[in-house]
Amino acid sequence: MTDTAKDSKASNAMWGGRFAAGPDAIMEAINASISFDQRLYAQDIRGSRAHAAMLAAQGIISNKDAETIREGLLTVLSEIEGGNFPFSAALEDIHMNVEARLKEIIGEPAGRLHTARSRNDQVATDFRLWVRDQCDAAIKGLDALIRALLGQAEAGADWVMPGFTHLQTAQPVTWGHHMMAYVEMFARDLSRFSDARKRMNESPLGAAALAGTGFPIDRHATAEALGFDRPMANSLDAVSDRDFALEFLSSASICAVHLSRLAEELVIWSSAQFRFVAMSDKWSTGSSIMPQKRNPDAAELIRAKIGRILGATVALFTVMKGLPLAYSKDMQEDKEQVFDAADHLLLALAAMEGMIRDLTVNRDKLEAAASSGFSTATDLADWLVREAGLPFRDAHHVTGTLVAMAEAKGCDLPDLSLAEMQSVNSAITEDIFGVLGVHNSVASRQSYGGTAPDQVRAQIARWKEHLA
Amino acid sequence: MTDTAKDSKASNAMWGGRFAAGPDAIMEAINASISFDQRLYAQDIRGSRAHAAMLAAQGIISNKDAETIREGLLTVLSEIEGGNFPFSAALEDIHMNVEARLKEIIGEPAGRLHTARSRNDQVATDFRLWVRDQCDAAIKGLDALIRALLGQAEAGADWVMPGFTHLQTAQPVTWGHHMMAYVEMFARDLSRFSDARKRMNESPLGAAALAGTGFPIDRHATAEALGFDRPMANSLDAVSDRDFALEFLSSASICAVHLSRLAEELVIWSSAQFRFVAMSDKWSTGSSIMPQKRNPDAAELIRAKIGRILGATVALFTVMKGLPLAYSKDMQEDKEQVFDAADHLLLALAAMEGMIRDLTVNRDKLEAAASSGFSTATDLADWLVREAGLPFRDAHHVTGTLVAMAEAKGCDLPDLSLAEMQSVNSAITEDIFGVLGVHNSVASRQSYGGTAPDQVRAQIARWKEHLA
Amino acid sequence: MTDTAKDSKASNAMWGGRFAAGPDAIMEAINASISFDQRLYAQDIRGSRAHAAMLAAQGIISNKDAETIREGLLTVLSEIEGGNFPFSAALEDIHMNVEARLKEIIGEPAGRLHTARSRNDQVATDFRLWVRDQCDAAIKGLDALIRALLGQAEAGADWVMPGFTHLQTAQPVTWGHHMMAYVEMFARDLSRFSDARKRMNESPLGAAALAGTGFPIDRHATAEALGFDRPMANSLDAVSDRDFALEFLSSASICAVHLSRLAEELVIWSSAQFRFVAMSDKWSTGSSIMPQKRNPDAAELIRAKIGRILGATVALFTVMKGLPLAYSKDMQEDKEQVFDAADHLLLALAAMEGMIRDLTVNRDKLEAAASSGFSTATDLADWLVREAGLPFRDAHHVTGTLVAMAEAKGCDLPDLSLAEMQSVNSAITEDIFGVLGVHNSVASRQSYGGTAPDQVRAQIARWKEHLA
Amino acid sequence: MTDTAKDSKASNAMWGGRFAAGPDAIMEAINASISFDQRLYAQDIRGSRAHAAMLAAQGIISNKDAETIREGLLTVLSEIEGGNFPFSAALEDIHMNVEARLKEIIGEPAGRLHTARSRNDQVATDFRLWVRDQCDAAIKGLDALIRALLGQAEAGADWVMPGFTHLQTAQPVTWGHHMMAYVEMFARDLSRFSDARKRMNESPLGAAALAGTGFPIDRHATAEALGFDRPMANSLDAVSDRDFALEFLSSASICAVHLSRLAEELVIWSSAQFRFVAMSDKWSTGSSIMPQKRNPDAAELIRAKIGRILGATVALFTVMKGLPLAYSKDMQEDKEQVFDAADHLLLALAAMEGMIRDLTVNRDKLEAAASSGFSTATDLADWLVREAGLPFRDAHHVTGTLVAMAEAKGCDLPDLSLAEMQSVNSAITEDIFGVLGVHNSVASRQSYGGTAPDQVRAQIARWKEHLA
Repeated sequence: MTDTAKDSKASNAMWGGRFAAGPDAIMEAINASISFDQRLYAQDIRGSRAHAAMLAAQGIISNKDAETIREGLLTVLSEIEGGNFPFSAALEDIHMNVEARLKEIIGEPAGRLHTARSRNDQVATDFRLWVRDQCDAAIKGLDALIRALLGQAEAGADWVMPGFTHLQTAQPVTWGHHMMAYVEMFARDLSRFSDARKRMNESPLGAAALAGTGFPIDRHATAEALGFDRPMANSLDAVSDRDFALEFLSSASICAVHLSRLAEELVIWSSAQFRFVAMSDKWSTGSSIMPQKRNPDAAELIRAKIGRILGATVALFTVMKGLPLAYSKDMQEDKEQVFDAADHLLLALAAMEGMIRDLTVNRDKLEAAASSGFSTATDLADWLVREAGLPFRDAHHVTGTLVAMAEAKGCDLPDLSLAEMQSVNSAITEDIFGVLGVHNSVASRQSYGGTAPDQVRAQIARWKEHLA
Repeated sequence: MTDTAKDSKASNAMWGGRFAAGPDAIMEAINASISFDQRLYAQDIRGSRAHAAMLAAQGIISNKDAETIREGLLTVLSEIEGGNFPFSAALEDIHMNVEARLKEIIGEPAGRLHTARSRNDQVATDFRLWVRDQCDAAIKGLDALIRALLGQAEAGADWVMPGFTHLQTAQPVTWGHHMMAYVEMFARDLSRFSDARKRMNESPLGAAALAGTGFPIDRHATAEALGFDRPMANSLDAVSDRDFALEFLSSASICAVHLSRLAEELVIWSSAQFRFVAMSDKWSTGSSIMPQKRNPDAAELIRAKIGRILGATVALFTVMKGLPLAYSKDMQEDKEQVFDAADHLLLALAAMEGMIRDLTVNRDKLEAAASSGFSTATDLADWLVREAGLPFRDAHHVTGTLVAMAEAKGCDLPDLSLAEMQSVNSAITEDIFGVLGVHNSVASRQSYGGTAPDQVRAQIARWKEHLA
Repeated sequence: MTDTAKDSKASNAMWGGRFAAGPDAIMEAINASISFDQRLYAQDIRGSRAHAAMLAAQGIISNKDAETIREGLLTVLSEIEGGNFPFSAALEDIHMNVEARLKEIIGEPAGRLHTARSRNDQVATDFRLWVRDQCDAAIKGLDALIRALLGQAEAGADWVMPGFTHLQTAQPVTWGHHMMAYVEMFARDLSRFSDARKRMNESPLGAAALAGTGFPIDRHATAEALGFDRPMANSLDAVSDRDFALEFLSSASICAVHLSRLAEELVIWSSAQFRFVAMSDKWSTGSSIMPQKRNPDAAELIRAKIGRILGATVALFTVMKGLPLAYSKDMQEDKEQVFDAADHLLLALAAMEGMIRDLTVNRDKLEAAASSGFSTATDLADWLVREAGLPFRDAHHVTGTLVAMAEAKGCDLPDLSLAEMQSVNSAITEDIFGVLGVHNSVASRQSYGGTAPDQVRAQIARWKEHLA
Repeated sequence: MTDTAKDSKASNAMWGGRFAAGPDAIMEAINASISFDQRLYAQDIRGSRAHAAMLAAQGIISNKDAETIREGLLTVLSEIEGGNFPFSAALEDIHMNVEARLKEIIGEPAGRLHTARSRNDQVATDFRLWVRDQCDAAIKGLDALIRALLGQAEAGADWVMPGFTHLQTAQPVTWGHHMMAYVEMFARDLSRFSDARKRMNESPLGAAALAGTGFPIDRHATAEALGFDRPMANSLDAVSDRDFALEFLSSASICAVHLSRLAEELVIWSSAQFRFVAMSDKWSTGSSIMPQKRNPDAAELIRAKIGRILGATVALFTVMKGLPLAYSKDMQEDKEQVFDAADHLLLALAAMEGMIRDLTVNRDKLEAAASSGFSTATDLADWLVREAGLPFRDAHHVTGTLVAMAEAKGCDLPDLSLAEMQSVNSAITEDIFGVLGVHNSVASRQSYGGTAPDQVRAQIARWKEHLA
């Protein structure tokens, strides 16, 4: 792949003097896709091997030609993987580059490979295989991240922390509960990639240019050889649509939103004012003069990734808008967007997994924060409704009065005496102290999916069983 | 529509003098959601009824209170549906409006309805129910559109038309084949909404503010009553995430891209230069002075819908980016985007279905266009490979020569004599005429999913069976 | 707001039974624009008045007809502003609604108003006038916000606070300096709206359908009457382009990003962990049971506005993509996006202005936060370079050692003794204490635009002079 | 730049085995920016030279050191431009790579270069210089495209073609008029880049990390040396904002919409059904077997560019949303988006300029298309109003009757006899034929900016004068 460097340099030169450059240079620059679609080389060769084997099985080419083609393609593959392949922009794309090199290596039979095939179904097949691989990679990355979150959840199933709304303390929750919320989100992301994979797993190969072919090909055979569930049922559709890429990008964008939210929390929690967590050195950068400083660089970069992934999504939607069937050259712009989005999603998943695994949680800070701000006021109100039979609004009024009393005294709710409380409402009994205090509060939230440590442990257990 | 004018005037006045308006008016304008979330009234009341019934079944409120609440809610419902409900911006949102009116009607028991519930899980439930309904509506709309396309496909399974690439004639295909390409696309859209519906069909109700509750509620019961498959497994996740809305919007955007492509084709095909189709008067507008003119307004408007639907998608992605858990007020911006996208997607589907049903196809124009431009050149080349055993590139060379010969003569390929053809390559026989001519061409494309009328009819039959 | 409910119900009914609705109802729903373009009524009538006056001046219609039209239009205007105008969806848009009513009022002369004009140049004119008004409103809103920020800056020109990078304390800055950063940003936003306004201030009126007209109209006269700088120079361009709307939306999006950043800071600063500021009750909401709680709702909603404004921007870009000249019906989708973006931008500006004016700053908290975290370490290093002549990297090394020493002792840098410092590097003198401590640090940053209070006051003075 | 190739290969390997890769590899992959920010090398070195010269002039470093630094930087520059510079991902970014190499070359003085500077103001300066260069390049590209369009307009100022609305023939216009519509659009784009350039032309250099510096630097001197109009007035703003990049991207998106519209027209006009234009071979691709076929690849690719440019715009807006001041690592994601958008905008402009210059216009086809479809019906109606004094609606009615008569006879309007016309309305005279026929029609549209050849030539003359 040495030539990419040369290309890159050439490209810089071209840009510098672009108004001097003749039309030929400009047309090559806008038209050739080899600089990016070379990433499809493995899929392209795999598709060609399946096609050649089928052609031979159907008697369309000879077994000898098929074997020659197979060996030639393996040679091309090893040249590319060895970095010895001379990519050429004049040959426009990966398909022509591979085909031209195959011809150099094996001669005439190379020409027969293109029987009953067109660049249109070839690129549709290559790209679909590539995107399918990215679904698998995203699923793997999500699985690893979910396991890392489960690890954190298990460690802190009963660590108390503030549950925020509006970034204001609302009610105490547990660290494990918070981690499990992300497990649910990322698990839905995983199921989205899984659905997308199933939907896209149909073979365009054999659609030819757009109308199918008169050669007696066997599309089911090539579909099976490439791991597809079936051939696509309409050849025009097979070469015209890119909805599988749009669905991948949309799913990646949703996942990137989830990542951005967790990343934002990590950035805020790492601030001097919160200090809920400390990032590992591996995922942060320091300062030569402020040795205690640790910038959450990885978290910030993960937070930013939704930008480029959503941008790529918008790009492809906009490209596809209003294109008449079948193939239009506009569709050449599909690949770079998906490449970029997939690369950065996978990178962000891997980095987030690492950060979560290496995260140091400041359990004391979490509990102290949860205990301030009268975070158990709703527990008190609920107790008044549940145990003392007060109407809801009355219970709220009593609670407000008690909170004001505690605030005036500079103490928290559990620090008020029973007498003080009874001076506000005589129905209050000693039992009230059983729901005040953050540990009591979280322990009481026993509704299904609630923050009680028992509930959290049940959630963890369900997921561990599911993943096993 | 007189009243809209009043609203509009009020609104204009507010804007015009907005710097005079005190903070109160500005805060109410930015904070209140009742102007749009009133659309959730049916879902809100349905959720409250399920919640009240469960509270009674669990012994948390009395059966009498539950019955009073139920009847009160039905009264509220009929007031809203009868247009007699006094919505109030001071009460901010639909939940508070309903609750306040319920209190007026039934008094104290209204307060008990809010036991073990919070606005956070209430709005999450309402909105999820609403989006679920839109999935159902989109599925219905897509089903109808698919049936309309099948009708067109069946009528014209063997009508020949140009298959385009780059809006240049490439190979002949059939009208039925072209219609069936869209059937495949819209069927994938349908399956996307179906997957989204399944994934979102979990109940947030009972998550309370964020931590669950200490009341002995039965979340499985309310989930079942509302048609959900199960309660959501984590209460923080239940009130924090909106990925179901993002998935709905993404699926709607993909569908809108498909619609935009078909609409673009209809606009182009309606031009004086193409005249492939004629729009029904119902879906176009004319001109008082040019009676023959018919502007494809509906098609253009459908083409445009991807704009606002993609815009809504970007809007919600951007809103959700980087929000810490659990609820933040930013999330109030979720509804209008989904409302607008759903309304316009459903409208576009209904309009497209109507247009397709009412479309008049100019079969002669289609065939004439397919027959020009040497559209069977690839058939000729394929015949040379298949029947005469020429290598692929040689076959292309011979074909190019014959096309040039026909062009020089001002005729099409089937108009060349056998002798003329043999002068270029002696391997050509009388059989060649069996693949020239557009009807022969399409008939020959017998590969699975190809454009041969038999194949197209098989595609239609599979879909009809599937839909039955 | 009772009537909105009726609309909503009607709309729900329509949707619920939309597949039953005939094509007529669907076509009217997708085609009519009166439900939103009625907002252009004032611009429409203003344009018509200018057009009629010009027609009379040019002798194309009689003075009497012109006067009759003028009075009729004023009647229509007062009917609309009085809420007595019967808008009709059957008449499609605001232009036809006004024209039809004018005909009812004045009879035949109404027909002459449309001489030498078309709906295409009419809507282009109306919409351009409306967007121009929004530029003026945005400029006014920004001006007010800048003044509010200047007020805060002036009050706290020397209040010390942490300057953050990565949400980690980096160096002390002043409150005034931080406020002035936003003054710069919003001032650039203001200049963007001002540039956009200048560029769009050309009159499309007289372009007619697309080709101009054979009537001897005076486009310069109507341009002047409507406050335009000149008529647009090409009639096709005048009715085809909407770049003025795209530029408005883009400028609004940039402004909304700036708003989102300030809003995010306000949310973070309001958290219990930061407590840098306290929101006024006017801009936050409380809790009936936690009287001390104050949710920064307005700040969160402002933060979210970039979502819908960017979404509207993407929507219109996508609609306009690839439309051939001149007018296509797709362009009817331009207005709602700009309406929504403008409304919410102006609302967010007004709310932010109010919040900034009413903000209570916790000066002690700011200073305490600035003083922790060895925030003057770079001052120490700079002193070593500047005064003691150490190479940069050596200075960093010495500083790191001193910070570590202070950290080990549990004190801050200024609390180390001279002897302790000299034990690390003997070049350190008593003068070092002049740069340690946050007040010394900020005072020392005297570079142009730096955070020294003198510099900040100079920035404020420049702006006050500029605004005066 | 040989190492990019290695990096690229390494990167592929990393991805393949990414789950095996340790945290170090993942962190380097997500954190390092050198793979893309190396494009800023010239700006980085230019900024450093200006800074060093200023430091010496202010007596902060010695003249000797400054001279050594200057020569060292020139050596680094020539190494990079010669392709001999060893870029290193471990050194993260272009700034560190240059600084490290400078240290190898000149030793200790390299360290002094960083006095009174930080990576934060350095990257802000580099990037701003780069974006400013792109404004200049876009202006140049637009200027060339405008000249190409003027060339076409001049050649065909009086060639008649259909003016379309809804892709239906509406009224005849001239080719020159249509070309000049795009001149107006691209000229506004040019003025947008010019405004953006002016607004961004302020120097961030000297803002240091965020607070300014205590060194006695001269920011006006470095601003002037770098061609900036002035230093930025607030150091926090200088390192925190990227609105200049957002404005560049927004302007690029608007320009790309204009390009997409012209490209769409070229694609449609190149179809067999339209044949209005023929693309030069340079800008299209053919088929080996269909020699007459010419695919408008370049036009399609230009049409698609709005996708990636709008995507890049959305990406950066989303990244910047809600970031607290001052620098956050998220902002590292700014560059790739602007690089990609600028590259492709400039490429699209150059390709469009070439296509327009090389375009062959089929004047006969244009005129034939303009003459069909009763395109002068509005001229007839206008004549009836203007010359025969008919009310507008009556004139329309008469015209509709005449069009129907012509349609029934299978002829066009000018082919009706005077007697036939008078049978419909007796006020019609021989003069009517002066406005029928497409040449008469366009000649009559003499309003300012109208399609009359005289008006078009006046537009051309104004632009030629303006550009001279």
